[in-house]
Amino acid sequence: MAKSTVGPEIERLIKLLARLPGLGPRSARKAALSLIKRRDDLLIPLAEALAVAKDKISICPQCGNVDTSSPCHLCQDPSRDPSMIVVVEEVGDLWALERAGVIKGLYHVLGGHLSPLDGIGPEQLNIGSLIGRAKAPDVREVLLALNATVEGQSTMHYIRELLADCDVTVSEMQKGVPVGGELDYLDEGTLAAAIKSRRQI
Amino acid sequence: MAKSTVGPEIERLIKLLARLPGLGPRSARKAALSLIKRRDDLLIPLAEALAVAKDKISICPQCGNVDTSSPCHLCQDPSRDPSMIVVVEEVGDLWALERAGVIKGLYHVLGGHLSPLDGIGPEQLNIGSLIGRAKAPDVREVLLALNATVEGQSTMHYIRELLADCDVTVSEMQKGVPVGGELDYLDEGTLAAAIKSRRQI
Repeated sequence: MAKSTVGPEIERLIKLLARLPGLGPRSARKAALSLIKRRDDLLIPLAEALAVAKDKISICPQCGNVDTSSPCHLCQDPSRDPSMIVVVEEVGDLWALERAGVIKGLYHVLGGHLSPLDGIGPEQLNIGSLIGRAKAPDVREVLLALNATVEGQSTMHYIRELLADCDVTVSEMQKGVPVGGELDYLDEGTLAAAIKSRRQI
Repeated sequence: MAKSTVGPEIERLIKLLARLPGLGPRSARKAALSLIKRRDDLLIPLAEALAVAKDKISICPQCGNVDTSSPCHLCQDPSRDPSMIVVVEEVGDLWALERAGVIKGLYHVLGGHLSPLDGIGPEQLNIGSLIGRAKAPDVREVLLALNATVEGQSTMHYIRELLADCDVTVSEMQKGVPVGGELDYLDEGTLAAAIKSRRQI
């Protein structure tokens, strides 16, 4: 320990913080220092919040959302429309759609997208359980709300083929100019999609 | 809870993570999700590391460093040269100098810089204790290793005046072109300083 810059306890804290997305080695050091300096109003509450998360939060066996109740509060909500399943790649996408407040149906989190080079095939994603849910008699629509990336779109095509045997409408999100977007800053693909699916006003 | 996107426990975890430097609301959500998904190899170890930090890490009463021993291991190290005190603004600066391995002396962490508009005067910084340490008979040099910012430099001038009464050499770091720096990317102030303090080769 005498040889290292900081003690092993601080070193370990920095290393763990550096594994969070968005924090590199430098910002992890800053975060560790901030935690140590703000012991009572940040370090202790965060330690407690993590302990609570450890004990209480689990993954919903039905949709893959994370929540303190199982099934999650969305799957348990009787006001939700069970005839529509919205498929997303990650829980963060589910949260984004919930913040927008535009989904009345239920969700299904795949846990990522197909990426053969990274060893992520259909078996690594929650695709089998999605097909199972889509075959339920009360399900009428499956909205594939995957990212508009190459990986997201190829995952979407793969799932669409699997869903061909199910008696459901399969839909995707419209592509176009983002609200508030300036044409000059948009890529050619977005502009082409927005022109192609133009609508009469 | 039914109305919020995520449960109150996750919401609280995200809010606390967002208070870490370097994490905004969006990256805090990503970090929380990552913690929940990587329960065993990230969430639990981080919760434990924070608990250890809470119990064991304190601020060195002599120099202001953070460490698990008090005084810190640097102040206790007999191989360090007690005749030199290196004054830095924050513990992160101390860590940076220790990583460079260029300081043989002891440190003194001010806890920031003078910033009258933010209500940070000399009383809010560890300046009084620095003067006390500088008056000890075995101290011969005080190196003011403050940031080369307007605030750092004005804090340096303030401390230099206070140290005029002490029987110590007061020094500052040289200003110049950073190692590996390209002239085209440097600001005029750095270039002017590097030219002004040019040396014969």
